[in-house]
Amino acid sequence: MKIILIRINKLHLNFAQAGFNEYQKRLQHYCNFTDELLLVNCKSKEAGMIKKTEADAILKKIQPTDFVVLLDETGKHLSSEKWAHQLEQYQSLHKQLVFVIGGAYGFDEVVYKRANALLSFSTFTYSHQLMPMLFGEQLYRAFTILKGEPYHHA
Amino acid sequence: MKIILIRINKLHLNFAQAGFNEYQKRLQHYCNFTDELLLVNCKSKEAGMIKKTEADAILKKIQPTDFVVLLDETGKHLSSEKWAHQLEQYQSLHKQLVFVIGGAYGFDEVVYKRANALLSFSTFTYSHQLMPMLFGEQLYRAFTILKGEPYHHA
Repeated sequence: MKIILIRINKLHLNFAQAGFNEYQKRLQHYCNFTDELLLVNCKSKEAGMIKKTEADAILKKIQPTDFVVLLDETGKHLSSEKWAHQLEQYQSLHKQLVFVIGGAYGFDEVVYKRANALLSFSTFTYSHQLMPMLFGEQLYRAFTILKGEPYHHA
Repeated sequence: MKIILIRINKLHLNFAQAGFNEYQKRLQHYCNFTDELLLVNCKSKEAGMIKKTEADAILKKIQPTDFVVLLDETGKHLSSEKWAHQLEQYQSLHKQLVFVIGGAYGFDEVVYKRANALLSFSTFTYSHQLMPMLFGEQLYRAFTILKGEPYHHA
């Protein structure tokens, strides 16, 4: 299975980029993982307009048969074990799995409409700068759980 | 109010240390924050023994009047706004607030017994390497919420 992460704009915190790089490197042992970085430059500073511009860029990257999971505060809260088994199920049912991390203001309605599932990383709001790293770590953790490797201490 | 973070052993991932440093620096504008790093070297490799050794070191650093909050998966799940207001309440009631991040295996029972509150950062298990950074970001976010500063987009 191919796993794609769509995300908006470069990370400006160096450690956030370094953290994401680390987990991206580790993931290469477990899956075909692609980082799809969208450079979105919206002239407006209004949150709604920014979300619409980002939504256009996101939807252009998604194929009709893709299974699309948004990383979103309103999504499902899972344990790492349940998430690993969810991922295993996705792998058995879909060829290409697309995860999307929104911009600083979240997603426009049209992105929610296209989504097949929503996954929450916390009841807290985390900086969207940290999300690629957190997603990378959790995806890596899921594969180590499914392979019975010692990374995860239940 | 003084805020102390107790944590176990050095971070070996450079980006995790750099991330924590960044938020620690930002926090200096908002509170008297101290990072209390405990170097715990347990001869045993057994999880229970490691937790007991860590517990001894943790409890030695805690004063009887401290309000102690463990960062723990079994703790309360709050939104960033609710967490900010919780923090404000703690500030009004206690002189010294101590947060504790456990080691790779979590906390021994005696640490749970001393704790005044438990706070969860996710239903996911995150690497304990990432926890100081995540805690720093969320504490920083809380202060910006309480001050009405534009960092947090609700």
